[in-house]
Amino acid sequence: MAHSLAPQIIGLDWGTSTLRAYLLADGGAIVESAARPWGIQHVPDGNFAKMLSDTIGGWQIRHAGLPIIASGMIGSRGGWREVPYASCPVDPATLAAGLLTVESINGCVHLVPGVIQRGTIPNVMRGEETQILGALAREPQLADHSLAVLPGTHSKWVLVRNGLIESFSTHMTGELFAILREHSILGRPARETSLQKSDEVFLRGLSAARDAKDEGISARLFSTRSLFLTGELPAEHTLEYLSGLLIGEEIRSALATQDTASLPPIVLIGDGALCSRYQMCLTEFGARQVRLLEDTAPHGLWLIARAHGLV
Amino acid sequence: MAHSLAPQIIGLDWGTSTLRAYLLADGGAIVESAARPWGIQHVPDGNFAKMLSDTIGGWQIRHAGLPIIASGMIGSRGGWREVPYASCPVDPATLAAGLLTVESINGCVHLVPGVIQRGTIPNVMRGEETQILGALAREPQLADHSLAVLPGTHSKWVLVRNGLIESFSTHMTGELFAILREHSILGRPARETSLQKSDEVFLRGLSAARDAKDEGISARLFSTRSLFLTGELPAEHTLEYLSGLLIGEEIRSALATQDTASLPPIVLIGDGALCSRYQMCLTEFGARQVRLLEDTAPHGLWLIARAHGLV
Repeated sequence: MAHSLAPQIIGLDWGTSTLRAYLLADGGAIVESAARPWGIQHVPDGNFAKMLSDTIGGWQIRHAGLPIIASGMIGSRGGWREVPYASCPVDPATLAAGLLTVESINGCVHLVPGVIQRGTIPNVMRGEETQILGALAREPQLADHSLAVLPGTHSKWVLVRNGLIESFSTHMTGELFAILREHSILGRPARETSLQKSDEVFLRGLSAARDAKDEGISARLFSTRSLFLTGELPAEHTLEYLSGLLIGEEIRSALATQDTASLPPIVLIGDGALCSRYQMCLTEFGARQVRLLEDTAPHGLWLIARAHGLV
Repeated sequence: MAHSLAPQIIGLDWGTSTLRAYLLADGGAIVESAARPWGIQHVPDGNFAKMLSDTIGGWQIRHAGLPIIASGMIGSRGGWREVPYASCPVDPATLAAGLLTVESINGCVHLVPGVIQRGTIPNVMRGEETQILGALAREPQLADHSLAVLPGTHSKWVLVRNGLIESFSTHMTGELFAILREHSILGRPARETSLQKSDEVFLRGLSAARDAKDEGISARLFSTRSLFLTGELPAEHTLEYLSGLLIGEEIRSALATQDTASLPPIVLIGDGALCSRYQMCLTEFGARQVRLLEDTAPHGLWLIARAHGLV
C-alpha cells in the first residue's frame, strides 16, 4: 500500500554509527527506507557525499528533484558541517529556522540543528529532537505535558510542555556499560565465559540501585565483583546484574526529584527491545503510564521540512 | 638511627601493581625497605617465589631465619595462594588466626587473610585491613571510633569501633576515572592535548557532584563533554573536572546518610598526594577532623605477626 504514495522528500537520520535514509510521502509516511553502517565515525575519508550518493542515488533516478533533510550527528563538529545548536525551548519552527545546507552531487542537503540547554550543567542533543517532535506528531496527546525518554549510549530524558522541548538531561548509561564491560574488573568474568540472559538477575541489579536510594550506586557498583567472588553471581550473569545496576541508577537519578504519583505520561522512543527493557524498569520504579514508539525520526523530519517550506 | 635496630621479621605489602618489602624491628619500625613493580599482575609466569627471592634475598643473607609475613592481593585467587577471608568485625587476633602459609626457597611465607563483610551487598578487601590496623596502632585515639578512608583504584570507607574493623564499603573511583579517561568520549579531548593542573577546575567538578545532591552524578557526568563543546571547559582541564566529579560523587555517596556535624574523626590512609586531595575535598563537604597517615602497612603486619606469635 505504502508504495502507491507519492514521494515528496528524502529524510536522513544520520547518527554516529548508522545512516538511516527514508523516502517520505505526505505526513512523513515511509515509502522506502535504507539503513547503512555509515555513521559519521565510519565514513571513509570523511566523504559524506559519496556515502549519501550510494544510499539515495537509486531513489533520485526514479524521483528527480526531491529535497533532502538530515538530522543527527551529521550536523556536529565531526560531521559534514557543524550546525549551531538551537536553544531550548524548541519546536519544529525553531529548528526549521536553524537549518544549514551543504551542497553535494545529489543536490542541497538541509541539516537540522541540534538542541542546547544552557546553564551550569549544559546539555546537548543531535537527532533526538527530531525523533521527539515526530513522536508528538504521532501521539498528539503527549504534546501538552510528557516525559520523553530515549535510552541508549547517551540516554536523554526530555520534558515536553505545550508542544515544545522544554528541558532535558543526559545519562551516559550505554557508554558506561560498554566501557565497564570491556575494560573494567567488573567485565572480566564475562569476558572469559559465554553469557546467559536472565531477567531475574537484571532485576536484582535494578533493585540494588533502587534500594541504594540517595546513596546512589557509587558503593554498589563493586558488588558486581564481590557477588561474583562470593559465588552468589555466576560469571555468565554478571553483565545482566551490571546492566540492571546502571539502568537502575539512571532511573533513580532521573526520578529523584519527582513524585512518581504525579509523573506526566512517559514515552520511550527508540529501539524496541531496549525500550521494552526500560518499560519494565520504569514499572519497577512505580511509573504507571509508559508507552513505546519506534521510528519517529521520519515524522519529525517531515514536520521540520514543512515548517521550512521544503514540502 | 634506624639501622641500629635489630631486624625481627620481613613484612610484605604485596598488591596488584607493587610489591613493597620491609625489614622490620620491634613495633614495626622500618630498618630497610624496597619497592618493586612486581605486583601480582606483573609477576612473570606466576613465579612469586623468584620475585620474592630477588627482593629479600640480600636481607636473608645478612639476617638468617627471620619469619616472613605478607598482606594484600598476594592472598587472592590470582595470587600465590588464596586465603579465605576473615569476616567482619576483625582485629589483629582474628587475622592472625586466619594466616595461611606457602613454602618457598626463602622459607615459609605467612599470608594474611583479606576481610569480607557479608550481606546483600558484600564487600571485600585485601591489604587495606593491615594498613588500617597499623594506623590504629600509630594513632591509638582513632581506635575507639573513626572512619578510615583509603582512596585509590577501589577506595575503601571503613568504620572502626572499639579497635575493630566493623564494616566498610567500596567505591571504584580510581578505576572509573582511568577507564573514562582512556576509553570514553569524556577523555577524548584530553587524549589529544597536554594536560594542565587546576585546583579551581577540580573544585568546580567537585561542587557539581556535591550540588547534585541525591540525584547523584548520573546526569552530571556528561557535563564534562557539554562544557567542553560549549567552550566553557578547555581540553587541557577536562580531566581535572572529571576527577572532581568522580571524587565528589564518592564523598557525597559515602556521607549521604551521615550528619557531617556528628562525623567521627576521619583518617586518610595511603599515598600522600592523593590523600591531600581527598582531605581538601572532605573539607569542602564540611568534615572537620581529617588527618593523613602514610606507610601504615608495616605496623599492621607487625601486630598480626605478634598476635600469631611469630615475633
